[in-house]
Amino acid sequence: MQSPPAEIGASVEEIDTPALIIDLDAFERNLAKMMTIAREANVAVRPHAKTHKCPEIARRQIALGAAGQCVQKVGEAEALCEAGIADILVSNEIVGDAKLRRLARLAERATIGLCFDAPEQVDAASRVAREHGIEFGALVEIEVGMERCGIPAGAPARDLARRITDAPNLRFEGLQAYHGRAQHLPTVEERRQAIDGAVEAVRTTLQALSAAGLPCARVTGAGTGTFRLEAASGVYNELQVGSYIFMDTDYARIAGEDGAPYREFEHSLFVLSTVMSLPTADRGIMDAGLKSFSAEKGLPWMRDAAGLEVVGVSDEHAKLRVGPAAPELRLGAKLMMIPGHCDPTVNLHDWYVGVRRGYVEALWPITARGASR
Amino acid sequence: MQSPPAEIGASVEEIDTPALIIDLDAFERNLAKMMTIAREANVAVRPHAKTHKCPEIARRQIALGAAGQCVQKVGEAEALCEAGIADILVSNEIVGDAKLRRLARLAERATIGLCFDAPEQVDAASRVAREHGIEFGALVEIEVGMERCGIPAGAPARDLARRITDAPNLRFEGLQAYHGRAQHLPTVEERRQAIDGAVEAVRTTLQALSAAGLPCARVTGAGTGTFRLEAASGVYNELQVGSYIFMDTDYARIAGEDGAPYREFEHSLFVLSTVMSLPTADRGIMDAGLKSFSAEKGLPWMRDAAGLEVVGVSDEHAKLRVGPAAPELRLGAKLMMIPGHCDPTVNLHDWYVGVRRGYVEALWPITARGASR
Repeated sequence: MQSPPAEIGASVEEIDTPALIIDLDAFERNLAKMMTIAREANVAVRPHAKTHKCPEIARRQIALGAAGQCVQKVGEAEALCEAGIADILVSNEIVGDAKLRRLARLAERATIGLCFDAPEQVDAASRVAREHGIEFGALVEIEVGMERCGIPAGAPARDLARRITDAPNLRFEGLQAYHGRAQHLPTVEERRQAIDGAVEAVRTTLQALSAAGLPCARVTGAGTGTFRLEAASGVYNELQVGSYIFMDTDYARIAGEDGAPYREFEHSLFVLSTVMSLPTADRGIMDAGLKSFSAEKGLPWMRDAAGLEVVGVSDEHAKLRVGPAAPELRLGAKLMMIPGHCDPTVNLHDWYVGVRRGYVEALWPITARGASR
Repeated sequence: MQSPPAEIGASVEEIDTPALIIDLDAFERNLAKMMTIAREANVAVRPHAKTHKCPEIARRQIALGAAGQCVQKVGEAEALCEAGIADILVSNEIVGDAKLRRLARLAERATIGLCFDAPEQVDAASRVAREHGIEFGALVEIEVGMERCGIPAGAPARDLARRITDAPNLRFEGLQAYHGRAQHLPTVEERRQAIDGAVEAVRTTLQALSAAGLPCARVTGAGTGTFRLEAASGVYNELQVGSYIFMDTDYARIAGEDGAPYREFEHSLFVLSTVMSLPTADRGIMDAGLKSFSAEKGLPWMRDAAGLEVVGVSDEHAKLRVGPAAPELRLGAKLMMIPGHCDPTVNLHDWYVGVRRGYVEALWPITARGASR
């Protein structure tokens, strides 16, 4: 783990680069706004720690009323549990006894749920839970249009729910119905159609469960691009939103309700980078590249820098085109870059540097960075 | 830092996933082959630690005759220095007194060089070196066609070399002449043209230096895609190759001398991943995604798995198309994936798991993972 890139109280100019920055004012407004929307819609929020990987942020979300946390990986659950987070849903299938045993140890001190889309997984989790004398919460993940994991809606999902109900040391809780691919569809209409399909899959499954006498307490899913749709659906009662705390250019490129760019939340996550070379009048080289931000969803944008555009990235560098409207760049200047994709960008860094009014107010370790197992 | 995904002596089947694997036999053949080629061409090899970020690998390269190590970042130099590596070139410009002071502390116990493309950088490094009573080796980085950092060849480079020669506590050593963009040009002919241009830029600068009475002991550059060209150029005397130890699909897609795919080195780096869901007969879901390999240069390939193709990746998952020729997949099967781009993939992991004949022989910490400052 690297040392922090600044000390508390330092000015932004004093932060060593590249550094992962949170604009704390914008971040706090994002956190509060999501809770307000969810309360008005009468749905729970279980924010996704795959985005932030940080117990400090989990605590803040829970203090504002979040139901607990989602994770994708056992290692993320371990990091949160270690920090005292008491209710964790692994919104993912877990295969292999080594991983199940690690989860079982966590279930000795926290409420742990996980997802299933195959009977073998159910049998293995039940066996390990029994061996450890603990109980897992269990959700059936249904296919809702993402074409990733998930068992078909309706009868197959009902049969898996029954298998869970019949399995010792598993507690059937409901449905995982996340449509990841829908989050970044360009228009609201496309996202609405996708989520309409997901809602239909959920309804079909709820009817099958009801007919079989299997009570379904939770339907959980949604992300930052579609959560208003799931919240209004009447079937989802828990939102697994993650990126809303930070935003990124991938979300900023989709359209919002009015057709204008989606601006439900503010950019609060940045990579601070230094101008390290100015070889020509129209080219500046920054000291942050693919090891400081993820670029598979597009190049980062510059914040507050009219006339500056990132036109290329390599492992340790980003290349800026310096346009006629740009302010004069000087060697050593520090500039904020908006990452293309927040989750994998966070996973590159060991520390968040929380900034308010130009000064470092917080240093939060990204405890679950690299916790991919 | 995460714990290792396996213990020494474990079988590949027992390695927890995702895990970053080195096939030690292939890796050792790659290391030896590069040294043989360089010896025959009478050029030095200074392998790039930006690729591996691992003192254990640096030691093995030096034991085979490498001149030392290249790094891009001060943090990488610190990790190597701490492990006793005695000769380190920062093949990059370093801006800011905080970073220069860290380098100066390293120069108290190791030979430290760095690159310059602007007079302000020279003045700052000289001042900091003087304050610390140490000396930095100093190279002028010239623009050779990459259009990233670098001062123009010829007179401007000569003037900067003179400024270095005149600056206290800097020791002018030669030219940094790396053409990164050339490495992945699709055909040998395109790469040859690019490196011909780089060689021309070096020659022009050598003539200017010679006419000014400035001796130039080193011309350093080259990468895994073009090193034979620089080695044969008659002007380069040091190769900064990095990826040759591992290979990746980005290098495997370019053409070699005979027009066939480039196979100068063997794939020795893999991400081991588990089949975690089998929702349909033609779809398998792996437990490794963008947090376990970098995908901005293309999707990973499957090793030894005819009929299996990665057709999509998300943050924690990869989606396989299971073709008719594929062996029957079972839930829990562990498969080797070949990353698209080795450097940023390594930077996601805390451990190399070195495997030989199906068993774990070595666990090497990736000490400089995340050392981007």
